[in-house]
Amino acid sequence: MASSPSSIATVPTSTVRIDLGDRGYDILIGQGLLGDSRSYAGLPKSSTALIVTNTTVGPLYTARLRQALSAHHAKVMDVELPDGEQYKDWPALNQVFTKLLDEAADRKTVLYALGGGVIGDMTGFAAACYMRGVPFVQVPTTLLAQVDSSVGGKTAINHPAGKNMIGAFYQPQRVICDLDTLDTLPQRELLAGLAEVIKYGPIADADFLSWLEAHMDALLARDRVALKHAIQRSCEIKAWVVGQDEKESGLRAILNFGHTFGHAIESGLGYGEWLHGEAVGCGMVMAADLSQRLGLIDASTALRIRSLIERTGLPVKGPQLGADRYLALMQVDKKAEGGEIRFVVIDELGRASMRPAPEAMVRDVIAANT
Amino acid sequence: MASSPSSIATVPTSTVRIDLGDRGYDILIGQGLLGDSRSYAGLPKSSTALIVTNTTVGPLYTARLRQALSAHHAKVMDVELPDGEQYKDWPALNQVFTKLLDEAADRKTVLYALGGGVIGDMTGFAAACYMRGVPFVQVPTTLLAQVDSSVGGKTAINHPAGKNMIGAFYQPQRVICDLDTLDTLPQRELLAGLAEVIKYGPIADADFLSWLEAHMDALLARDRVALKHAIQRSCEIKAWVVGQDEKESGLRAILNFGHTFGHAIESGLGYGEWLHGEAVGCGMVMAADLSQRLGLIDASTALRIRSLIERTGLPVKGPQLGADRYLALMQVDKKAEGGEIRFVVIDELGRASMRPAPEAMVRDVIAANT
Repeated sequence: MASSPSSIATVPTSTVRIDLGDRGYDILIGQGLLGDSRSYAGLPKSSTALIVTNTTVGPLYTARLRQALSAHHAKVMDVELPDGEQYKDWPALNQVFTKLLDEAADRKTVLYALGGGVIGDMTGFAAACYMRGVPFVQVPTTLLAQVDSSVGGKTAINHPAGKNMIGAFYQPQRVICDLDTLDTLPQRELLAGLAEVIKYGPIADADFLSWLEAHMDALLARDRVALKHAIQRSCEIKAWVVGQDEKESGLRAILNFGHTFGHAIESGLGYGEWLHGEAVGCGMVMAADLSQRLGLIDASTALRIRSLIERTGLPVKGPQLGADRYLALMQVDKKAEGGEIRFVVIDELGRASMRPAPEAMVRDVIAANT
Repeated sequence: MASSPSSIATVPTSTVRIDLGDRGYDILIGQGLLGDSRSYAGLPKSSTALIVTNTTVGPLYTARLRQALSAHHAKVMDVELPDGEQYKDWPALNQVFTKLLDEAADRKTVLYALGGGVIGDMTGFAAACYMRGVPFVQVPTTLLAQVDSSVGGKTAINHPAGKNMIGAFYQPQRVICDLDTLDTLPQRELLAGLAEVIKYGPIADADFLSWLEAHMDALLARDRVALKHAIQRSCEIKAWVVGQDEKESGLRAILNFGHTFGHAIESGLGYGEWLHGEAVGCGMVMAADLSQRLGLIDASTALRIRSLIERTGLPVKGPQLGADRYLALMQVDKKAEGGEIRFVVIDELGRASMRPAPEAMVRDVIAANT
């Protein structure tokens, strides 16, 4: 395996297909894709396009994307939203609608999400709702968005009482994962993205977990070839899951491994305090502990998951919110149905399921990991 | 034909099926349905339900609906929104989300829309977005909602820059049209509903137009049998159109006959000044005039449409906003694509299509009908 992080050594572009019939689409993974007009060939035709980005990513990439899109759209507009999970809300979403209406954008206008998970979720939701649905394309610039949030059509904004409570299942037309954009990613965000990469091992692919253990140093050094493999395998697993259960009526819920505890951490501290991936990483440690306490996996397997997360540099101890607060926050989480909290647990390495757990056991997990 | 408006003479319940595969559903039309628990049998099971209504309709019907639903849900909540098109906005929609979250409603919670078109559109959009989609049932209490807005899955809220600009296609689980609720409908709203009933004649069924001409007096006197026929035939035509084109990529647009001019009237005066049906009635007069000027129908046909609308007691002259303002407002209307305004016109009585029209001709139509 090559280990040079140089941007000169280009890796070939790969395509992962999300198979959803007439809502199916491709994920392109490679170098130099964002600024290459060929990346956007064959998308729905429209005279107008809107790039939705934020004040951090916009200055870095909007001009390059705009240039590439000029081959496909006569008019390319952009709107910069404030950066951060705390702005994943209605006022910011409404900035997109107001921009579209001020510019008389029609129902063929294509939206381009240029940024991380927050921008992708908001742009997707804006596209789902504007005139009851316009096409959109994901151009994720963070590792987390490339391996998880930009793929699969989950879009949403937050409500003060809960994360992602208002949203839609709405599929993009294409996902463009440009490895070059990871060069500008702060290290903390790279690690947060790796949390979602690690997730795919325990829930779906024990061999991938082994591969991650063997290549974590290369990933942390931003080795292009290692990153590409991690992104591609993550997208393949996500594509397999989403292809079977687009609207999360069953299997898809396993993608929320670590998210029930993680959302409680994010919400309890206030959005933006911990990164989503950090909360999920810590949440996976707690969910692995719960799986062990339920007798599903042994202590060495739980420790293996914990060790990899710790080695990545992610937090493995949750904030001390108190068990009551954790429970209250998880109760309102959308995985709670009929009042009972259900958790994604590991049945064996590479296989997960949703199960309820006794409240006392959940309290023990919280006590042991905060 | 019976002519007694008495509530003792019950008409039998009819069912109209909206055929959309796994998103298909029934419209029940009859008397005493709202308060009858059998009307809600076989809907998705959930321990909790939320009735969304407004401050006008709630005091009249919430208790009756709550009683009927108690057979199906352990906990039935309700939320009363302010009444009126001017409140079809984000703050009112967010009241629904806040209520759901405050009560820890889960993703199986069923929403019931109890009211007219505004309540139906908002409840449907809330159901589409809450946790990315929960089931909902339409219980329309106005004629307009029973014959049009509650059927077909168009949901939305308004934006200051345009009506219904933010929304979703999201189908209800069932529509319950209780004729008894029309007893409490103000006459002005009955007439507004008749505008949407009349619409179905010119666009899809010349015989129905003749029937309406013959039975307008009975309808205005709220004859139960006449109203039931009008509602059923309207729903059948709408079901036929929506079944072929759920997401308005083609045919469905004919249901917007009169709406392009109508939305300009509503928006130009400020939402709530004219009722939606009043604006549509007047808009149909303008669209019929346009159809005649385009050489599609003769003067007698245009006059026939105009006369029926006038006889119903609906306005046939639009407000004097000026042609420039009308054109600007229609430009932003979502039927405008690629900058060109397209209108639903009558090709012959019972058949409609979408066509562009020369701006000078549109100005003539506005001058002649305002």
